[in-house]
Amino acid sequence: MTELAPAPTSLPGARSASRQTAGTVRVDHDDLLRFTAEVFTAHGIPPERAKAAATALCHGDITGTTSHGLVNLTRIYLPLLTSGRARADAEPRVLADRGATVLLDGQGALGLWLAGEAMDLAVRRAAEYGIGLVSVRGGTHFGCAGPHALRAVEHDMVGVVASNCGHQRIARPPGGRVPMLGTNPLSVAAPAGENPPFLLDMSTTTVPTGKVRAAARAGDEVPEGWLADDAGAAVTDPTRFDGGEAHLTWLGGSGSAQYKGFGLALMVEVLAALVPGAGLGPSQAALAVDGAPDDNIGYLVLAIAPAALRQPGIYQREAGSLFGALLACPPVEPGGEVSYPGVPESRQAERSRRDGVPLGDGLFTELSALAGRLGVAPPAVC
Amino acid sequence: MTELAPAPTSLPGARSASRQTAGTVRVDHDDLLRFTAEVFTAHGIPPERAKAAATALCHGDITGTTSHGLVNLTRIYLPLLTSGRARADAEPRVLADRGATVLLDGQGALGLWLAGEAMDLAVRRAAEYGIGLVSVRGGTHFGCAGPHALRAVEHDMVGVVASNCGHQRIARPPGGRVPMLGTNPLSVAAPAGENPPFLLDMSTTTVPTGKVRAAARAGDEVPEGWLADDAGAAVTDPTRFDGGEAHLTWLGGSGSAQYKGFGLALMVEVLAALVPGAGLGPSQAALAVDGAPDDNIGYLVLAIAPAALRQPGIYQREAGSLFGALLACPPVEPGGEVSYPGVPESRQAERSRRDGVPLGDGLFTELSALAGRLGVAPPAVC
Repeated sequence: MTELAPAPTSLPGARSASRQTAGTVRVDHDDLLRFTAEVFTAHGIPPERAKAAATALCHGDITGTTSHGLVNLTRIYLPLLTSGRARADAEPRVLADRGATVLLDGQGALGLWLAGEAMDLAVRRAAEYGIGLVSVRGGTHFGCAGPHALRAVEHDMVGVVASNCGHQRIARPPGGRVPMLGTNPLSVAAPAGENPPFLLDMSTTTVPTGKVRAAARAGDEVPEGWLADDAGAAVTDPTRFDGGEAHLTWLGGSGSAQYKGFGLALMVEVLAALVPGAGLGPSQAALAVDGAPDDNIGYLVLAIAPAALRQPGIYQREAGSLFGALLACPPVEPGGEVSYPGVPESRQAERSRRDGVPLGDGLFTELSALAGRLGVAPPAVC
Repeated sequence: MTELAPAPTSLPGARSASRQTAGTVRVDHDDLLRFTAEVFTAHGIPPERAKAAATALCHGDITGTTSHGLVNLTRIYLPLLTSGRARADAEPRVLADRGATVLLDGQGALGLWLAGEAMDLAVRRAAEYGIGLVSVRGGTHFGCAGPHALRAVEHDMVGVVASNCGHQRIARPPGGRVPMLGTNPLSVAAPAGENPPFLLDMSTTTVPTGKVRAAARAGDEVPEGWLADDAGAAVTDPTRFDGGEAHLTWLGGSGSAQYKGFGLALMVEVLAALVPGAGLGPSQAALAVDGAPDDNIGYLVLAIAPAALRQPGIYQREAGSLFGALLACPPVEPGGEVSYPGVPESRQAERSRRDGVPLGDGLFTELSALAGRLGVAPPAVC
């Protein structure tokens, strides 16, 4: 383990003051982005791409979605690059262009960058046609779906991003004995007037694998309902998931509602992978796949431009009314608060910018060691 | 109550033989469509529209989704027409046209017809642009979302249909004391090669109101998880829902997963209502609405044409492989069967065509009485 390099922008004594909770270090928001981008450039990613990829990856830690943040840097993205399964300099190819719709082959580019590029293209098409769809094959893991969907919001548009998991088979169809589908995430981001943007970012299973593995690493049990065994009984020991004895449940849990979660996963498989011709979970090809099972991931990347259809400004006014009414909803519990997806993440991001991004001690040590190995400065402690 | 008219195409003795289960009558599939269309024409709907509306409404009974079938003819659609809240001869207006996207004002046309028209328009645009979005305001209740989405499948396209509930407030945000949103259904239909089409058709609550009311009418309890009281405790007496003492839960039930169902409902509210400028659930306008709360419903109607992006035929081959692999998945229980949304509905529709459409005795009596009042022949018993 390389010794920690000094945190270049921190003041003396700042580090211990920054330990707001036991086992957590707060690092400077912008410097965390700088560090992450430098790690990517050290792996051959061109600087602009590295910056975009860093923004997408750090979104997890900045917004509190830590299961999809920097913990995956050394577990998913660097191995993808060093093994050659993701290509640092890949040039995506347009395979078909119908104006409002573009079929793109990502050529194995880093998904953290590629998905955002696809959204920027969808946004340009939506400005002209009202809707823009970029249908992507040949993608790799793109991290949280949310930051890619949020790029549409910067243009006052609604963004939808979904991804399958290539040929990877993680979750079983209801009543089935063999895993067939990925956790198939879906994200929708929408401007909300003066309120924080609406941001749904969900797996179609009750929880994604990242949350189960985080609990396993922490030695925690998981709540009933996340995992089930062969007979459908609840499993609370998360280590039994990677042991193959426990399976992710679909959103909806048990009973007939699980067909909704399963159906949403299939919706994503169709829209994100079958339409562009990406790798599929349930197919004969998946059994005889050449390469790793989550190569050739497919994305659905969609932007809708309300201003192409209605008077500019009216969407934002009505969106402000809609989401403002939710925030003003009287709570059941006195002193409680009503919110919507995206609000807790926006508030956490604000705290991260102001007070620093909280990283677990273990993760901070890991990133600092990585910095040492690569000869880049570690993220500055606040 | 008008006496039953004789069933014109039934053979002597056929009716009692058709009672496969106690309290059920089987009526001829095509004649049920004929009857339903005639009821609509008797209410001023032009014949071609009436035929389309009948197909959409009867889809519920034909496929086994009885909560959204003919039970709603006298409860929702005829009152909409006789009260003038739905207009039989409404001419929808195009408010904006960007090629791939059309903004349509339904002008209060019958949703059972309007949503299908919107899908046919989306399909034509998708054939040219790869994707077609018809964003609808001024709609009325469209029944099941599924049959409208399925119109895309007839053109080898993927169809997506969603609807909000206008200003109607049925379900509460998590932790909130006031209902703010509708049950906001979402449907996705996709060709599946030689297999039955994939058809997801779901409310974003655990169950839609129709299922709760059907249980209340039948005097049945509902399973735990469908309804909760103010404190979040499960309620199994469905009559407490219309009594205001029990509330629909979001898909995901309790715990953090309920934010996914709530988020999906907001996704539908944004895409189906905020984008076109339809009536919104959570807004100040909803409190001061002029007219009934579920007027000015919004729809998202989307078609995606794989053949505009890839070689014709390849989508169907790969879709056959995907959905075929699911049907061939080894079951957990010996002799069990793995399926996907759309398969049970397709099989039930096949039985309905062959053996007749099952209608509850009470519903059959109600429809026969309606036939007598309107002077049309009741649906023929098989």
